[in-house]
Amino acid sequence: MKIILAPDSFKGSLTAPEAAEAMAKGVRKAMPEAETIEIPLADGGEGTAESLVAATDGRMVHVIVTGPLGKPVEAAYGILGDNETCVIEMAQASGICLVDPNERDPLKTTTFGTGELIRNALDKGLRRFILALGGSATNDGGIGMLQALGMKLLDAKGKDVQYGGGELVRIETIDDRLFDARIAEADFLIATDVQNPLVGPDGASHVFGPQKGATFEVAELLDTHLTHWANLVEEKTGMRLHDLPGAGAAGGIGGAFQAFFPSRTKRGIDLVIEYARLHEHLPGADCVFTGEGQIDYQTASGKTPMGVAQAAQAFNIPVFALAGSVGEGIDTLYEYGITSAHSIVCGPISLKQAITRAAEFVEQSAEQITRIWLAGQSTK
Amino acid sequence: MKIILAPDSFKGSLTAPEAAEAMAKGVRKAMPEAETIEIPLADGGEGTAESLVAATDGRMVHVIVTGPLGKPVEAAYGILGDNETCVIEMAQASGICLVDPNERDPLKTTTFGTGELIRNALDKGLRRFILALGGSATNDGGIGMLQALGMKLLDAKGKDVQYGGGELVRIETIDDRLFDARIAEADFLIATDVQNPLVGPDGASHVFGPQKGATFEVAELLDTHLTHWANLVEEKTGMRLHDLPGAGAAGGIGGAFQAFFPSRTKRGIDLVIEYARLHEHLPGADCVFTGEGQIDYQTASGKTPMGVAQAAQAFNIPVFALAGSVGEGIDTLYEYGITSAHSIVCGPISLKQAITRAAEFVEQSAEQITRIWLAGQSTK
Repeated sequence: MKIILAPDSFKGSLTAPEAAEAMAKGVRKAMPEAETIEIPLADGGEGTAESLVAATDGRMVHVIVTGPLGKPVEAAYGILGDNETCVIEMAQASGICLVDPNERDPLKTTTFGTGELIRNALDKGLRRFILALGGSATNDGGIGMLQALGMKLLDAKGKDVQYGGGELVRIETIDDRLFDARIAEADFLIATDVQNPLVGPDGASHVFGPQKGATFEVAELLDTHLTHWANLVEEKTGMRLHDLPGAGAAGGIGGAFQAFFPSRTKRGIDLVIEYARLHEHLPGADCVFTGEGQIDYQTASGKTPMGVAQAAQAFNIPVFALAGSVGEGIDTLYEYGITSAHSIVCGPISLKQAITRAAEFVEQSAEQITRIWLAGQSTK
Repeated sequence: MKIILAPDSFKGSLTAPEAAEAMAKGVRKAMPEAETIEIPLADGGEGTAESLVAATDGRMVHVIVTGPLGKPVEAAYGILGDNETCVIEMAQASGICLVDPNERDPLKTTTFGTGELIRNALDKGLRRFILALGGSATNDGGIGMLQALGMKLLDAKGKDVQYGGGELVRIETIDDRLFDARIAEADFLIATDVQNPLVGPDGASHVFGPQKGATFEVAELLDTHLTHWANLVEEKTGMRLHDLPGAGAAGGIGGAFQAFFPSRTKRGIDLVIEYARLHEHLPGADCVFTGEGQIDYQTASGKTPMGVAQAAQAFNIPVFALAGSVGEGIDTLYEYGITSAHSIVCGPISLKQAITRAAEFVEQSAEQITRIWLAGQSTK
């Protein structure tokens, strides 16, 4: 028997590698002779670097960079086992989690630190980039990142503009003569599920601004600023980011990648699955366990269990999903290849207990499911 | 596919018939063509009458009888579908749940109401009795029940003694001339898991007295009283209840049945399984669902899921157990035939939520388990 354990993290309790390990333990308790293959995953959000590093036997690199509000933060990025590809989570340097709720202000937050992470990786000789855009605190169109990589964004007086979406409107000139030349030799794979354009009612400012601290008025203002920026980019590159799908990802940094980087975009979970080489392990596998902190109808929107299920469905392999909580609408997941979904908890307990005992619960659930599945085989 | 749903009640939330129905719904969601057979069970405790009534398409009868403290209570007993057998739960008339904790006093509590239930059933022409002894509030050796059925238990002055274990010592004469003659024509099947003798350190007073409100001193006194009673019974019938296994069940009423009734004793769950005809349905069944409010290592001590598992094991049929809570040591249950055990809850939630949504949770869990089990069959 060959069993694949391919979970996301259980947010707040288990990393994806920890969840995969607990699943493997449970499976082997029920079936000591089983071959278990742990493939920790992520959906392009938090944990993407760690998962791909674990899946490819790579390593994490820790760097001090400029945080979203200009103060230094420690950020980690991953270098995969191939030693050629790095995985940068934008949230590590420019993430909403790095900003206290009362300090959230997309007029000020910058992507500068994300640019510094890219530069750090370029300095290490890396040229293949995976950029995970989830969880940003910013709405600066990516200008901070561009500046960190040498792009000059000058105001009417020829001076560099400062950090934040509030500065976009002051830019008069885009001067790319000092833009890091190594970028042109590199390859940027952008992991994002966002298809929003840069501006307008479906644009970055109106759709994602509020969760980053923008009032409606501020969102209006930011939308105007991004429009100004998009006009400049169009003059400079000929590319119209205004309506371009994906340009609105992560406060407009998606547009910056499309305009100035050799880049392509991929849905987060598909990209992670590809790099974790799930497809290479699926042929001959007997069943797959996946999981995540929460499973419900939203899982169908590009979450890890659904990506895993779609991949396994092609091989007609059953997929058992574990979650801390199972919510409404899981029957909508069956068509994507999810065989069943289960909460790991042992009864009515507190969230705190569930988090503390998560590894034990995942192990026990995986064991029980394996036992049922084996019973199905022997009663046929 | 033939699937048997044979749960106990989920205490505080679902009766056994409700649990069985929810399981059946879940199974059919996963497998619309399945034949589902609902066999609600009990282990000889609370819910035994209701389960057997449901399993045999019988009916419940409601009667006003004398409660454990002498006040009237409404008690129900079951008449099975055969119209010949009745199921009397002693707890309905003489149960600990009928007495406020601060009024619990086994010197006073009586089994009189249990005798009245028996008389009521005899009056209806019933001669086959199942007596479920769980949950009694009494330690009167069954004298209340005997008196309700015409036995004269007289003090030194030739007067009837009153209610309660405290009166046992005052009995001088057992006069059975007016003892209900119909009892000799009847058959009493006593459902109890208790093997304790009537008196001594392992006897009714010392082992079960404390949970009925006896201090150590009162338990000592009751043990002396029961010894006096056992001596009288021995003089009268030649039967030595003192050390007889099972005579100590339910405050000594077990001994009264053995001495004065045509009776035999059976473990509660085995008796219920027999009357619910589980064995007739097992041949050809593909799998069995069982369940109970709590499943843990104690389930092995004669609880319903374990009785079901033992029965199904003989036919090599997998048994999936559902519970509100799954506790420690479930791996000790595998050897009895439990294939797997699962909590029904959907995540970290309160007990109140778990109780309110229990039917939904049981249904969903049964559906998910069926889906896994079917996946096992198709991947073989």
